[in-house]
Amino acid sequence: MENTLAEHRRNVDRAQLIRRLRAVLPASALLAEEEEMRPYDCDGLTAIRQLPLLVALPENEEQVQAILRICHELRAPVVPRGAATGLSGGATPHPDGVLVSLAKLKKIIAVDPLSRTAIVQPGVRNLAVSEAAAPYGLYYAPDPSSQIACTIGGNVAENAGGVHCLKYGLTVHNVLRVRGLTIAGDIVEFGSAALDAPGYDLLALLNGSEGLLAMITEVTVRLTPKPELAQVVIASFDDVRKAGDAVASIIAAGIIPAGLEMMDRKATHAVEPYVNAGYDLQAEAILLCESDGTPEEVAEEIGRMQAVIERSGAAGIRVSQNEAERLRFWAGRKAAFPAVGRLTPDYLCMDGTIPRRRLAEMLEAINALSERFGLRCANVFHAGDGNLHPLIMYDANQPGELDRAAAFGAEILELSVRFGGTITGEHGVGVEKIMLMAEQFGLPEIDAFHRLKTAFDEHGLLNPGKGVPTLARCREYRQARAGTATASARP
Amino acid sequence: MENTLAEHRRNVDRAQLIRRLRAVLPASALLAEEEEMRPYDCDGLTAIRQLPLLVALPENEEQVQAILRICHELRAPVVPRGAATGLSGGATPHPDGVLVSLAKLKKIIAVDPLSRTAIVQPGVRNLAVSEAAAPYGLYYAPDPSSQIACTIGGNVAENAGGVHCLKYGLTVHNVLRVRGLTIAGDIVEFGSAALDAPGYDLLALLNGSEGLLAMITEVTVRLTPKPELAQVVIASFDDVRKAGDAVASIIAAGIIPAGLEMMDRKATHAVEPYVNAGYDLQAEAILLCESDGTPEEVAEEIGRMQAVIERSGAAGIRVSQNEAERLRFWAGRKAAFPAVGRLTPDYLCMDGTIPRRRLAEMLEAINALSERFGLRCANVFHAGDGNLHPLIMYDANQPGELDRAAAFGAEILELSVRFGGTITGEHGVGVEKIMLMAEQFGLPEIDAFHRLKTAFDEHGLLNPGKGVPTLARCREYRQARAGTATASARP
Repeated sequence: MENTLAEHRRNVDRAQLIRRLRAVLPASALLAEEEEMRPYDCDGLTAIRQLPLLVALPENEEQVQAILRICHELRAPVVPRGAATGLSGGATPHPDGVLVSLAKLKKIIAVDPLSRTAIVQPGVRNLAVSEAAAPYGLYYAPDPSSQIACTIGGNVAENAGGVHCLKYGLTVHNVLRVRGLTIAGDIVEFGSAALDAPGYDLLALLNGSEGLLAMITEVTVRLTPKPELAQVVIASFDDVRKAGDAVASIIAAGIIPAGLEMMDRKATHAVEPYVNAGYDLQAEAILLCESDGTPEEVAEEIGRMQAVIERSGAAGIRVSQNEAERLRFWAGRKAAFPAVGRLTPDYLCMDGTIPRRRLAEMLEAINALSERFGLRCANVFHAGDGNLHPLIMYDANQPGELDRAAAFGAEILELSVRFGGTITGEHGVGVEKIMLMAEQFGLPEIDAFHRLKTAFDEHGLLNPGKGVPTLARCREYRQARAGTATASARP
Repeated sequence: MENTLAEHRRNVDRAQLIRRLRAVLPASALLAEEEEMRPYDCDGLTAIRQLPLLVALPENEEQVQAILRICHELRAPVVPRGAATGLSGGATPHPDGVLVSLAKLKKIIAVDPLSRTAIVQPGVRNLAVSEAAAPYGLYYAPDPSSQIACTIGGNVAENAGGVHCLKYGLTVHNVLRVRGLTIAGDIVEFGSAALDAPGYDLLALLNGSEGLLAMITEVTVRLTPKPELAQVVIASFDDVRKAGDAVASIIAAGIIPAGLEMMDRKATHAVEPYVNAGYDLQAEAILLCESDGTPEEVAEEIGRMQAVIERSGAAGIRVSQNEAERLRFWAGRKAAFPAVGRLTPDYLCMDGTIPRRRLAEMLEAINALSERFGLRCANVFHAGDGNLHPLIMYDANQPGELDRAAAFGAEILELSVRFGGTITGEHGVGVEKIMLMAEQFGLPEIDAFHRLKTAFDEHGLLNPGKGVPTLARCREYRQARAGTATASARP
């Protein structure tokens, strides 16, 4: 993992910046001491830590605007930060920039049960939106596993997903409008309450832009009626290929499960002693396939799911008989990461996606890589989306193991691209996967990204060194890779 | 309706352009005689006709690339054209530019029933995709009413909708990947076969960009399983307000109908003598509410639809008892435009959208405007999306009537914006509604659109004079409107 922040150093007059910011912010909203700034030195990608030049904690949109105008004028980088639960370093501070935490913008402005929307500030936690909507029988559908802590602004920046996004969509499908500020401090409205809007789709552009295009100050989200009932089918397979085929067959049958997750034997064996979810430990792979809706819809759909899974050669099938059992079946899946963490000093979590039909092939390839690199790997997949989370286990104290784990992970992501997938399903690029963008995209696409960035941020001040590598670095990367056997098929 | 093309005149050496294009195109692929070019002088917006400088009919991507490179070098405008069924003048030729018809790129490259995708060239007709997918029980969901003729490239450019887009989404929700060329002739891949991709969402940006950002040469679309059964509820109301409330209540009950259409008394009275659909002519408004899925799902959902509609105070409810009756109920809705065409020498079709809860209020406002302007207006709404198609009847041979009709239409669109909606639901901006963009958006948004455009097309050569008005014209428009009572609420 290369840290590309060093390429984007700026010559910023810190004393002048402090003087200017103090003039527009309350004293408590600007942190300049190392000790105060230390808690902000990383996000969920803890391997990369960096103190920012300053930390700002604005309390309203006017203060955000004032900060941006000053930083723009003085050409100081700005890094937006939500709850910092992101796993790819999107909120890693910049050594010459102001880290702007939006944590204090946490008002729920409105919940409208009739239009089924809520207007919230960016620092509102994902789960708090659902809690505010609950009295109306509504909730906010995207459910990243960090939903207790992560905030809506960060969800938009990363286009966050979750276990239910196969049926209910990613953040981009659940956000109607964003109010934001450009680096120059101009207020821009992205999207509207209507189904479609004229003009280019700036809203879609903003979703997943990892804080590189605008600073978010308000979000209108879509709310979804809570389903009356949910039930889950849990199926065991004696062969990963059969499990992969079952996933493809479920989708091919026109069923869109509320969740469709796969775990391999290493993952179930890590989980079961930890949470007693009741998983079949003989199985090479298990599937969790959920249905939700009215009782009639669920009964009908569970029946169809069982039929397809049986035809795919499942060794065993159970259906949750009550809510407690459903939650127990899910508890294992949800505890997979900490459970694997108990078995190994360190692990790397990958986030590639592939076309669903290649799931079994990918699992077999990962098993072969696991042997070649001499490292264990447990696999937990959002199978319905083709989103993979292989957990590569290693020990950072054993010389060479981290490098071996990183090389193993890189091969999985290169394979994902060659299978027609992507290097990230839901965790973003950030600093973590920035060079892999050269694996994913050709130079014309990288160039288009840069031209877009320049359209919003001429001087490259918003979150520099994240998301998109420079063209020069892409060329270097591609030249270095040109000699190897796994060179990308892309031009 | 102002023609903004005149602002974008270019000084192009026609003889040189012909010479250069002849060198890279077969003789039959370049039209330069007025007589040959005449059929290309307008799209569905027939009120604006303009001969292009030249017409090119490339047969493959290499020829498209060669044309773009030459036009880019000689700074000649390029206007892409699909089937030219668009209603807003997106394909109106430019007087100094090359009209590039993609009609010959009409190959269906692949249909993959397992991944439920098809790869097609831009000139493939919308319905031809569904025909190619039919043997696998699949179809392409977006169904604009021009689907027999309109092509996938144009569908992407306009982000086309249709009667079923409430449930199945717009074009942007049914397209996975687009291959296109920038004006400089660089090939760019937008999107991928995966659910989400790293980098900015160029695919969403391209959808609905009205040919201003790139020329499309290949599209990967999502295919949808054909539902086993469809049934429609037809309901009559003695008051438009009750019909509007019924729409809001259906959606609030968590039902997403496969189609949810509203027609007012003027529309049903225009239609019934023409097609004998069996509509209730006593009703002030009727609703068509469709369910599709498995027989069990449809039975359950139709029951819930009936219950909600009854509670909304419907005067009468019928459910289609067989496929013939269902098609008869829909035949009236589908024939509404030609039926109104029989009652009046000319009509204007509006395309605003509003939040669903304001449907009844809008209908009442339109009726008041109809009296004020002394012009009849029949209303056909995609009610589920809040997308309005008021048909304003007038006679162009009566002095002043066209102007009155245009003023009536403009007031409807301004009201749409004030109600929190938009000036176009599915027909696009093109040249038709370009000045209304200044009603819809503030100057910062218009500026962001221009910066985006420049990122892709520095010299403004792709489809100039469409989609987004210049900032200078926006300022003029807003100054002119500032004195009037209906000035926009936007800053």
